[in-house]
Amino acid sequence: MSKFWSPAVRELTPYVPGEQPRERLIKLNTNENPYPPAPGIEAALREFSADHLRRYPDPQSIALREALAEVLGVTTEQVFVGNGSDEVLALAFQAFFRQGRPLEMPSISYSFYPVYCRLYDVERRALPLDDEWRVDLDAFTLESAGVIFANPNAPTGHGHSRAAIAGLLERITESVVLVDEAYVDFGGESAVPLVERFPNLLVTGTFSKSRSLAGLRLGYAVGSRELIEGLERVKDSFNSYPIDSLTSALGIASLTDREHFEACREAVITTRERTRVRLEALGFQVLPSQTNFLLVSHPKLDAAQLFVELRERRVLVRHFNTEVLRDYLRISIGTDDEMDSLIEALESLCR
Amino acid sequence: MSKFWSPAVRELTPYVPGEQPRERLIKLNTNENPYPPAPGIEAALREFSADHLRRYPDPQSIALREALAEVLGVTTEQVFVGNGSDEVLALAFQAFFRQGRPLEMPSISYSFYPVYCRLYDVERRALPLDDEWRVDLDAFTLESAGVIFANPNAPTGHGHSRAAIAGLLERITESVVLVDEAYVDFGGESAVPLVERFPNLLVTGTFSKSRSLAGLRLGYAVGSRELIEGLERVKDSFNSYPIDSLTSALGIASLTDREHFEACREAVITTRERTRVRLEALGFQVLPSQTNFLLVSHPKLDAAQLFVELRERRVLVRHFNTEVLRDYLRISIGTDDEMDSLIEALESLCR
Repeated sequence: MSKFWSPAVRELTPYVPGEQPRERLIKLNTNENPYPPAPGIEAALREFSADHLRRYPDPQSIALREALAEVLGVTTEQVFVGNGSDEVLALAFQAFFRQGRPLEMPSISYSFYPVYCRLYDVERRALPLDDEWRVDLDAFTLESAGVIFANPNAPTGHGHSRAAIAGLLERITESVVLVDEAYVDFGGESAVPLVERFPNLLVTGTFSKSRSLAGLRLGYAVGSRELIEGLERVKDSFNSYPIDSLTSALGIASLTDREHFEACREAVITTRERTRVRLEALGFQVLPSQTNFLLVSHPKLDAAQLFVELRERRVLVRHFNTEVLRDYLRISIGTDDEMDSLIEALESLCR
Repeated sequence: MSKFWSPAVRELTPYVPGEQPRERLIKLNTNENPYPPAPGIEAALREFSADHLRRYPDPQSIALREALAEVLGVTTEQVFVGNGSDEVLALAFQAFFRQGRPLEMPSISYSFYPVYCRLYDVERRALPLDDEWRVDLDAFTLESAGVIFANPNAPTGHGHSRAAIAGLLERITESVVLVDEAYVDFGGESAVPLVERFPNLLVTGTFSKSRSLAGLRLGYAVGSRELIEGLERVKDSFNSYPIDSLTSALGIASLTDREHFEACREAVITTRERTRVRLEALGFQVLPSQTNFLLVSHPKLDAAQLFVELRERRVLVRHFNTEVLRDYLRISIGTDDEMDSLIEALESLCR
């Protein structure tokens, strides 16, 4: 605490990201992609002229937004980009959710949402998941400042269909519905095609997972022109140039290589299902997943202890120390070799 | 306007950055450096492994902060880094200036400060410059939420000595004094050595100007451990990883090449003084400058018209369309050749 801090800063409870260990571990804790980014990234790195960096970037990131718009099947004006989807989410909280009414979200979802609520002084109404730990779309009400959830959801892994999201949007028309699609490329169904029909739908996405570019910090939002303009107003009052020239060039290079993208996401999906079978054979309960992670529990083993013992065997997974998730581990999908090492370690621990 | 926007967003007046033209112009409008970044940047770009980008960056940017700390003569814990110094400033407004009292700043300074005031609902008290258009350090009061100004100031160019800043800090001890040193390397005197003595001093800096890396988006703050911790609390509630892995690597490469840095800033200073003499010979009034720009006016020529006519001659400078700056042009210092072209164009217009 410091007398120099703004009073509100004393009340903040920061988000705690998964550890980035300095030692060599089999790292299955932050949902990174086990495969390298598209080969075009390497080429773009080699070709980029350092001299270009002495100029400010395009404050509107037009070239990057054009490339994204083409891949997503929307117009450039329907796309917003930010320094990771975390920044996009933070700007969206400021642009849309400061309405003096509570924002509705599932009780279990991306744990950064409650952090933004505190930072931007937005009241939060947490709604329970349904019996199968899916986001309960029927629970959201008309009285909220808006709705936010991840689809597929994290860390549970379940994704609703586009038709189900459309059903929600037919009901909630007067406030923004933010669907965070960080994991959608691993088997979810994107709501992006719905932005034409629903002016209050904002879909966010990231290059961190399916595009293997967590280290580059690049995220985006897709929505109606009026929602994107709201984000731009906040962004232009915060940071004129959030996307650096290199990130823009590498982001474009990633988008132009669809073959690599498809191959990597299919590999992750195949490994995920193979891992599921082997975990179940060891007695784990494994939630259905349309993401690049599995949320698992074991009827006889303590998750917190398992986390520690796996780490001793040089396998790092994620354990959330909250009441509702205490019995679970979230395991990111690595290569087949990495998952073999995980299963071996678990076999020795389950004996 | 949109019914989906937060009410406060409707009131925002975004900052307007200088134009980044697509056509080829002699670009003297955004205070970019005319010289390329350090040769080590090119090498770092060639050596960086694309595969490294699939991992999240270090959320604390320790390696980059260590490198900065060494160059600045402080400890790693006294350094904060952000996505351009604009982001650092925005986080500082949230961390320190939301006190329910007005924030004090000069009536003429970096025009982003009033934008942050509106975004974060901070009342602003603008204090006039002194008779020679210097920041009036004696005008700041003890009743404020804090003090912010650029030193050297923009777009006026004058910088106060470290002793003068120390005098201010001996008087203002109960709120944060933020000294924005974006331009300090072109002849100003840095207040960084004062952070040991004054726990309420925060100094911000950027890689955009003297390090020729505007396109990379990298800025920093130096201050007491308690101020840096305040910034970290806001940052960790906003974006866990604001600095991407490439930016961190290239920032470190820039810091390790002191020779190039010294040569470029000296070249800019030499060209600035040479340009001053030639502008004065053309009848311009030129404010003293410790920056990489000159603020000039001409007793007989209209600045707005001069801006247009220079652009027609393919020279882009900056004109601020505000009452107090209407008669001035801000001219960034380019290479000697670029400044020769500027002078030639002005000679034809002054005839």
